Amino acid sequence: MPGNTGAIDVHVDKVELLNPATELPFYPSNTHNIPNEDLRARYRYLDLRRTALSNNIKKRSQVAHIVRSVLYDQDFIEVETPVLLRSSPEGAREFLVPTRNTTSSAAESSASVSTKREPLFYALQQSPQQPKQLLICSGGVDKYFQIAKCFRDEDGRKDRQPEFTQIDLEMAFVSWGDSISAQSADSNNLWRIGGTEIRDVIEKLVQKIWRDVEGQQIPETFNVMTYHEAMTRFGSDKPDTRFGLEIINITDIFNTNQDINTSSSDLVLECIVVRKSRDSAFIKASRVSQTDESVEHFTLTEANVRSWLLESKAASHVYPSMGQEQQSLINRTLKLKSGDDIWLAYRPRIPKGGSTSLGRARLRILDLAQSRGEYTVTKDPHFLWITEFPLFTRDDADKDFLAHGRWSSSHHPFTAPMSQDVDALYRGEIDKVRGQHYDLVLNGVEIGGGSVRVHDAAMQDYIFTNVLQLSEKEKDPFNQLLHALRCGAPPHGGIALGTYLPCIRLFCFDRIMAMLCNTQSIRDVIAFPKTASGTDLLFRSPAPVSDDTLHQYGVQSRLVD
Amino acid sequence: MPGNTGAIDVHVDKVELLNPATELPFYPSNTHNIPNEDLRARYRYLDLRRTALSNNIKKRSQVAHIVRSVLYDQDFIEVETPVLLRSSPEGAREFLVPTRNTTSSAAESSASVSTKREPLFYALQQSPQQPKQLLICSGGVDKYFQIAKCFRDEDGRKDRQPEFTQIDLEMAFVSWGDSISAQSADSNNLWRIGGTEIRDVIEKLVQKIWRDVEGQQIPETFNVMTYHEAMTRFGSDKPDTRFGLEIINITDIFNTNQDINTSSSDLVLECIVVRKSRDSAFIKASRVSQTDESVEHFTLTEANVRSWLLESKAASHVYPSMGQEQQSLINRTLKLKSGDDIWLAYRPRIPKGGSTSLGRARLRILDLAQSRGEYTVTKDPHFLWITEFPLFTRDDADKDFLAHGRWSSSHHPFTAPMSQDVDALYRGEIDKVRGQHYDLVLNGVEIGGGSVRVHDAAMQDYIFTNVLQLSEKEKDPFNQLLHALRCGAPPHGGIALGTYLPCIRLFCFDRIMAMLCNTQSIRDVIAFPKTASGTDLLFRSPAPVSDDTLHQYGVQSRLVD
Repeated sequence: MPGNTGAIDVHVDKVELLNPATELPFYPSNTHNIPNEDLRARYRYLDLRRTALSNNIKKRSQVAHIVRSVLYDQDFIEVETPVLLRSSPEGAREFLVPTRNTTSSAAESSASVSTKREPLFYALQQSPQQPKQLLICSGGVDKYFQIAKCFRDEDGRKDRQPEFTQIDLEMAFVSWGDSISAQSADSNNLWRIGGTEIRDVIEKLVQKIWRDVEGQQIPETFNVMTYHEAMTRFGSDKPDTRFGLEIINITDIFNTNQDINTSSSDLVLECIVVRKSRDSAFIKASRVSQTDESVEHFTLTEANVRSWLLESKAASHVYPSMGQEQQSLINRTLKLKSGDDIWLAYRPRIPKGGSTSLGRARLRILDLAQSRGEYTVTKDPHFLWITEFPLFTRDDADKDFLAHGRWSSSHHPFTAPMSQDVDALYRGEIDKVRGQHYDLVLNGVEIGGGSVRVHDAAMQDYIFTNVLQLSEKEKDPFNQLLHALRCGAPPHGGIALGTYLPCIRLFCFDRIMAMLCNTQSIRDVIAFPKTASGTDLLFRSPAPVSDDTLHQYGVQSRLVD
Repeated sequence: MPGNTGAIDVHVDKVELLNPATELPFYPSNTHNIPNEDLRARYRYLDLRRTALSNNIKKRSQVAHIVRSVLYDQDFIEVETPVLLRSSPEGAREFLVPTRNTTSSAAESSASVSTKREPLFYALQQSPQQPKQLLICSGGVDKYFQIAKCFRDEDGRKDRQPEFTQIDLEMAFVSWGDSISAQSADSNNLWRIGGTEIRDVIEKLVQKIWRDVEGQQIPETFNVMTYHEAMTRFGSDKPDTRFGLEIINITDIFNTNQDINTSSSDLVLECIVVRKSRDSAFIKASRVSQTDESVEHFTLTEANVRSWLLESKAASHVYPSMGQEQQSLINRTLKLKSGDDIWLAYRPRIPKGGSTSLGRARLRILDLAQSRGEYTVTKDPHFLWITEFPLFTRDDADKDFLAHGRWSSSHHPFTAPMSQDVDALYRGEIDKVRGQHYDLVLNGVEIGGGSVRVHDAAMQDYIFTNVLQLSEKEKDPFNQLLHALRCGAPPHGGIALGTYLPCIRLFCFDRIMAMLCNTQSIRDVIAFPKTASGTDLLFRSPAPVSDDTLHQYGVQSRLVD
């Protein structure tokens, strides 16, 4: 307990030195002169002596214990799923584990019987998705959770770790959303999908964590926003709602007030107004903020206040016939004044993907205003559920690597369609189908995501075959799930808690801990982390292995000098 | 809740079928006709519907939660140590994980700088021993625990699992045993080593598990027995004290009563007496029990009661000059009668290893009496600590594989010597040194083991260099631990809870669960286990991997058709 010195006198009778500290490569108590990260990584057992670091490790244990206790008290069962799983056919960035087995009938898929003798491999689990769904499908466990180690052989990020942790849960008999579809009147209760049971569990859990760890009382119920609203108002599917600068739809203003020809009814013109008066904390940052090509930036002066829209390339692209009348309408409606800043862009009418160029411009202004010390965001955390995502996408370049022009699942192929959109699904209006997926967003960061799953085997097969157009070979890894559904699986849904890593499409508990510990580096919340290149300077891994050992696993080095 | 039928009438207004169950390959509710294990493994999601199995999974979660809560309430911090570690130089049965890194300076040991380009590998952790000691050495965490996934590529056992779970804990500032060495008067308090803090934690934890899960009140303090006493009385270092048939030392009787020449003062003659009167539950089993060559078996009759010892090869080997006087002394002292059964053998005077041939004969009689239905062991669990093991051994064939005739550590090289034996250590009287190691034994099964560690770098280095005579290369993996000790590590000790698997020298939580669930098979307490050959019939792993994928990891198949 910190206190003023001088309060207590200690009279020492006898001192026993338990162990002398010699040969210290650096002094962890000297927090003003912390050595470089490589040196600290090599002597991690000394670095962990720093209070800042050991406090993070303790806080991590505290949060994990809260998670377990809250869930256990609600009759969740913690079940360990296999770390050693089957490698996925698409050969995503999994870690392989050679075995001393060779090809045998047990390991072969029914579709591909090989006669060649081949070495066989496990793959380290990337997430417990399939095991946990099969567990719940079994009916043996109604409420499952796990704080699970996951593994991903990803490179190219500055802050990657090959192993990370995920809080994972799944429940049987979750609601499917049909009966509550009419409750859309209350704009703060827009949860029109199923899975309210999951929502309740998570809200209580997050409240408890923030109360016990951060000492903050947060709302009992979190706001809900549809994907469409989030993209329209904030240009992001994980909006940071702690500050304003909301996006204004210029096309809506035109449509409400006057007829004007548009080059394409599939486009929408929008802007952000940074007002000199109201947004004084942002105005300086806005003036000097960078933009990308797709966004135009105007600082209004007496000279351009009556012509800026007419000068805009974006505006004249969407509205080629625009004139002074439109300029005046917008100036009047938005109450624009000299000194205000305008950011302007167009986007497709139906929002796609995770953000718009205006949404990104909005965040850049915030970052700059904060780093210049002109704006401080509120300390109250803003939690927000996002729902009603499009169930399928064709606009994800990463996914098209496997889809080759076919539809892909926005999240994963087990997510159920909204009950309101099941008919559209079977009619083949794929772009209209919204999913029963929910993301939990904190201050603009995705910290959880899950969905109600398909429990109807015929519907799941229809999605695999008719929507995603998977070949028999591509469907093969899902055959046991399809059969489990046919064995009378209960309706079910789940969620993974953790900060979402878009590059690997996984949720990472370590990063939530980094947020709670106010550190930028994930390595500050892991007792023995690896460097960004995946090496462990303390245990000196990875390391070479003798040829003899490799040969036991049916493999050999193919590298030459 | 089970109850008699007919107690409640249910009036059904409406039934909604959530999901029909079709295509069931077997009916899990039909417990009288359970299909073979392979079929159930393939459809594990159906097998888990069996109440017996899902109850095991739930009990496992309950026990894990008790462990975490008890330890967390005592300020233990749960810390995740790396699953991806460095492979050990002796190439024990570890799983390797190829990486896309190739040889680089970071991964090389100072001792072996290679210029050849080689693929680099992580190894999956076999136990968190080194990371947890380094964590405690750091001083950042005083009380650590973890329910850790461990991996071992072992074959040849009928019940192996490549991945298993271990309850692991370690504490700083444990006592070193010096001050309590005089307390040997109380024969029930023979704990003359350090680590009493660990003992207290484990006893409270085990009490809580048995109370909550088994509904059994067990003693607040467990009995303690030295290794020497356990080997002498029960012929085992993990004695089953639930039944008698204790071993009687004939050599002691001779030594007390008369002078008799022995062929070797390094040998001891012992026997087990199964009395027709007192041990009626065992006498039939004893008469038909098998023995190995080193044990002699006599059923006393009027014809041989006055000559059996004289007929014994073992007795005449140890006492070539034995005569009728000795036969009478033993008959009189042991009150032998016609109808009693005698098992007789000799052993080295200083006990070695884990059991004696008489100890094994004693257990065979128990097993046979139980399987014949003639004896039922008490339902009260017998917990017992075994201490004062020899610190080093030369009699372990498994260890000699690496030791090549040198001394090996009986447990591991970090175990501290008993403070009473430190002088003997430095005098080089290696066979006299006992370690501060403690095993927890339940009903003859080892369910935990740990030790107070060496915290003095000079002593640790002396053990590596002078006792174990490790080469510089063999010492290399321990260099970071030695340096951590030099940085002022606190005295520390720890334990792993789990059923000990001698073949892999590791503790396995899954097997404690099998005991608590009254099942013989470890697969009954794992949600998604693998078969004995390491294959997963549900997820169909391990599986082949494409050549392209392998090439990314710098390896290729070396198998040919």
